[in-house]
Amino acid sequence: MTASVFIGTSVDGFIARPDGGLDWLPAGGGEPHGYDDFMASIDALVIGRNTFEIVLAFDPWPYGDKRVVVLSSKALDLSVVKGGNVEQMGGSPEEIVALLTASGAQHLYIDGGITIQRFLRAGLIDRLIVTRVPVLIGEGVPLFGSLAADVRLDHVATRAYPSGLVQSEYRILHDA
Amino acid sequence: MTASVFIGTSVDGFIARPDGGLDWLPAGGGEPHGYDDFMASIDALVIGRNTFEIVLAFDPWPYGDKRVVVLSSKALDLSVVKGGNVEQMGGSPEEIVALLTASGAQHLYIDGGITIQRFLRAGLIDRLIVTRVPVLIGEGVPLFGSLAADVRLDHVATRAYPSGLVQSEYRILHDA
Repeated sequence: MTASVFIGTSVDGFIARPDGGLDWLPAGGGEPHGYDDFMASIDALVIGRNTFEIVLAFDPWPYGDKRVVVLSSKALDLSVVKGGNVEQMGGSPEEIVALLTASGAQHLYIDGGITIQRFLRAGLIDRLIVTRVPVLIGEGVPLFGSLAADVRLDHVATRAYPSGLVQSEYRILHDA
Repeated sequence: MTASVFIGTSVDGFIARPDGGLDWLPAGGGEPHGYDDFMASIDALVIGRNTFEIVLAFDPWPYGDKRVVVLSSKALDLSVVKGGNVEQMGGSPEEIVALLTASGAQHLYIDGGITIQRFLRAGLIDRLIVTRVPVLIGEGVPLFGSLAADVRLDHVATRAYPSGLVQSEYRILHDA
């Protein structure tokens, strides 16, 4: 099982404005920077309720028939998703990973600020692919949060794109 | 006049631990990544009092005979610097830049968390050279702070080093 993060941030480290706004991202997601290939490589997308509710506003549902797992301890009305493959799970990151592994998933895409931070703190993220958008927005929802201990990273590759996107890929070293 | 920032951060954007600790940086400053060439290109280093006091603990004084300007509204005892070329200034970033320009400086190195943030907010930084060290430290002194408005960046170049350092250079676009 491999769990990956693939996300865009401002150069000052935010994934959204304080109100969730994404207007600072390049229009249409910017020039191609590997998202489609990455999506094709994953078996399931794991997101939290906040991200789910943001994505619900998109029309059409952006994940096609890709398996999407929404983490929530509260009941969700998944019937509102038209044509998607969405299920709900609760529990700790360890429990989620165990359930998904048992169901045959080998590559998970962990997305959304709170969910990424929970899985990082639990030591369950293996790959980090961060694409920096060339802007400082000053405040917002940070990608990273507090940790119980330093997390050492192994730099795999960095790619710069003509529009100014800079994408760095890291493997997370699990010391324990 | 050009004002540049040349600084190392963790991948989560910190320049020091909450107590100022730098133990997470690679020993000896890491593999060569352009610092010496950058230092040779500047006429004066501008730092705040906090950075000055940290640097004072180094032996020998690390800046040789390079002109160093310490920003402080309180009196500083500069006689404790052995062999350096240190002076004190007060005032706004605009006033500091005007004074230094009048004295013949053409390339300033703006360093230290608070000082960098003040000059960024004042729209007085022209180049940003950020070297990401492959580690997450979870909390600390952030490189970036709040801004009155978005700051658009022009990506100049990114260089990855074998040890995992990733250095991105940006030009700051001054819209106004």
